[in-house]
Amino acid sequence: MLENRSCWCRPLPLPPFSPLVAALPETVPFVGPEALERRSGITIRARLGANESGFGPSPRVIAALSEAGADAWRYPDPENHDLRYALGAHLGIPAHAVMPGEGIDGLLSLAVRLFIAPGDVVVTSLGAYPTFNYHVTGFGGVLQFVPYAGHHEDLDQLAAEVRRSKARMVYLANPDNPMGSHWPAPAIAAFIASVPEGCIILLDEAYGETAPDGTLPAIDLDQPNLIRFRTFSKAYGLAGMRLGYAFGHPTLIGGFNRVRNHFGITRPGQAAAIAALGDRPYLESAIAAIGRSRESIAAIARANGLEALPSATNFVTIDCGGDGDFAARVLAELAQRAVFIRKPMAPGLDRHIRVSAAPDAELELFADALPQALRAAYEPG
Amino acid sequence: MLENRSCWCRPLPLPPFSPLVAALPETVPFVGPEALERRSGITIRARLGANESGFGPSPRVIAALSEAGADAWRYPDPENHDLRYALGAHLGIPAHAVMPGEGIDGLLSLAVRLFIAPGDVVVTSLGAYPTFNYHVTGFGGVLQFVPYAGHHEDLDQLAAEVRRSKARMVYLANPDNPMGSHWPAPAIAAFIASVPEGCIILLDEAYGETAPDGTLPAIDLDQPNLIRFRTFSKAYGLAGMRLGYAFGHPTLIGGFNRVRNHFGITRPGQAAAIAALGDRPYLESAIAAIGRSRESIAAIARANGLEALPSATNFVTIDCGGDGDFAARVLAELAQRAVFIRKPMAPGLDRHIRVSAAPDAELELFADALPQALRAAYEPG
Repeated sequence: MLENRSCWCRPLPLPPFSPLVAALPETVPFVGPEALERRSGITIRARLGANESGFGPSPRVIAALSEAGADAWRYPDPENHDLRYALGAHLGIPAHAVMPGEGIDGLLSLAVRLFIAPGDVVVTSLGAYPTFNYHVTGFGGVLQFVPYAGHHEDLDQLAAEVRRSKARMVYLANPDNPMGSHWPAPAIAAFIASVPEGCIILLDEAYGETAPDGTLPAIDLDQPNLIRFRTFSKAYGLAGMRLGYAFGHPTLIGGFNRVRNHFGITRPGQAAAIAALGDRPYLESAIAAIGRSRESIAAIARANGLEALPSATNFVTIDCGGDGDFAARVLAELAQRAVFIRKPMAPGLDRHIRVSAAPDAELELFADALPQALRAAYEPG
Repeated sequence: MLENRSCWCRPLPLPPFSPLVAALPETVPFVGPEALERRSGITIRARLGANESGFGPSPRVIAALSEAGADAWRYPDPENHDLRYALGAHLGIPAHAVMPGEGIDGLLSLAVRLFIAPGDVVVTSLGAYPTFNYHVTGFGGVLQFVPYAGHHEDLDQLAAEVRRSKARMVYLANPDNPMGSHWPAPAIAAFIASVPEGCIILLDEAYGETAPDGTLPAIDLDQPNLIRFRTFSKAYGLAGMRLGYAFGHPTLIGGFNRVRNHFGITRPGQAAAIAALGDRPYLESAIAAIGRSRESIAAIARANGLEALPSATNFVTIDCGGDGDFAARVLAELAQRAVFIRKPMAPGLDRHIRVSAAPDAELELFADALPQALRAAYEPG
């Protein structure tokens, strides 16, 4: 929210929002690092909280973005034609089985809108992606939460809750955010098979590129109730361009054409995504750098007597060894030292903090700040 | 739509869309020039159909876009803080009375979602912005159409239809698209006063910068049922970046925080918009160039015996002197000659074509092609 709510405007009787919207709060699902800087007055020196990629996009992508400026006066292609064909070739599926959108966030909103009427039940894990929950609530869906089983989303209980609640939709991230864990492909395939065909499965693979081989199930467009989501925000290093995509059975994917903002993806964004797909060696080097960075983060955790969980993502989740309040104090102390990190909020997960892979210089700042932050967090007041 | 609908996928019993969505068609409200090129195999040489600005954005904006590439790995600020303050300063209102969005298109979708429940009536002019209609239908609103009065939207009849149908929302563009006409500010103020306060007025001022002085009403945030929309897509020359904004009473504007895609505007886009607002001399030179281009288009029309309507926008609407079929043939003949132009489709408006302001080189192509296209259209077959 903007700080300055003062205004010369009179409070007025305003026309009412629709009944659905009248029940919703004004919210920002994630407070951005820029907002934290504005509030604290502290300029962030290590940006390790948003699971971006400080390794950045391919030099070819930066060149494409630079060239695209001169063409920014033209509307983007509303069909995203070239990008869809590039994505289709990348995935080995027809272009009309893929739909790009304004980040996975934008596509999740549309997917909820496509299938959920007010009162319909949607199942997700307690502590999973809050922006998905925001969109479900925004369209009147009723959330049913399943606790994590340790550090993993609980596939059996998710499927059981779908059947018990007669859910219309279930959300699963593999690899998982915020815990960084993953299920191997056969477990995901068994989960998909265990969900009734009348329930849409949204499988969020935002972190798919950084997962071990064998994590992502083979693509099967004949699966009638599965939509998968990937993004250029993580391994590709393009979070600022808002580029995600969904893929699945063409009839499901075509549904997005009923509701989407057709001109929603920028023209430079389309060019950047195509350039990113064209530079496989850079992607592999970025994935390798992320892998090394994960090891560095785990080593920093161990040097401070903390447990780093195994990660299939571009972040490492660290058990701070205390309760949720303690982890929150560690986070606040890190923020005081110009290190931006986020943490899970759900009971059972909330004793962890989540550190994004990043170049060494930022990790060194984290390594310097962590022991100080832990000491300060042990001695409150 | 993509051409290649063939697929190895089996037709399957798929989970149903929500009842609202099940009734919607798959659609693209505007066929883009790139799609026309793909279908015809003809590369467009004069891009005069989408009311973009071929004069482009400010050099400062192009520089800002070029610099922003290196930062594209960072998520954008979800609060659009700096852009909102810049827009507030530009308009002379508090930042929290302004909401940026993914073009006016994206904001219209959200505005409809905020206020319209299925079955609610929405009033617009017959032949006005089709993308608005798409969003109304998409949320279950029921459209009531009011015919144009000559080349103008009919303010008295729009207000009368709002009262008759007990509408919850009315849409008005001033200046108007597709006719290029405008009402002076006092007429708009009288219209606003004549609409019951329970009906939200969406005032689309996409073409506000190119209108004569005295077209845009003074800003009054105490107006309880008015949301105004402007964009960087027209005079600012940034259609490819998807940057629009809404402003009005802070409680109405705050409503967007209940439903929007918070990370929807790209990071380079936010930087570009701020840079654009900071270069007032360039904007004025672009407006002057658009004005000269309007005169050139009118002269080309007159040289061919056609009437050009007065324009307050970045395009000129030309009466082709025949019926809708004749104008459609002119358009098709121009397309054969690599000149891309669009036309209104509604009865009474459809004998016109609509030519975007553009640099001289493109207008010369139009000047060369128009007499040939008119001759060919007179002699079909």
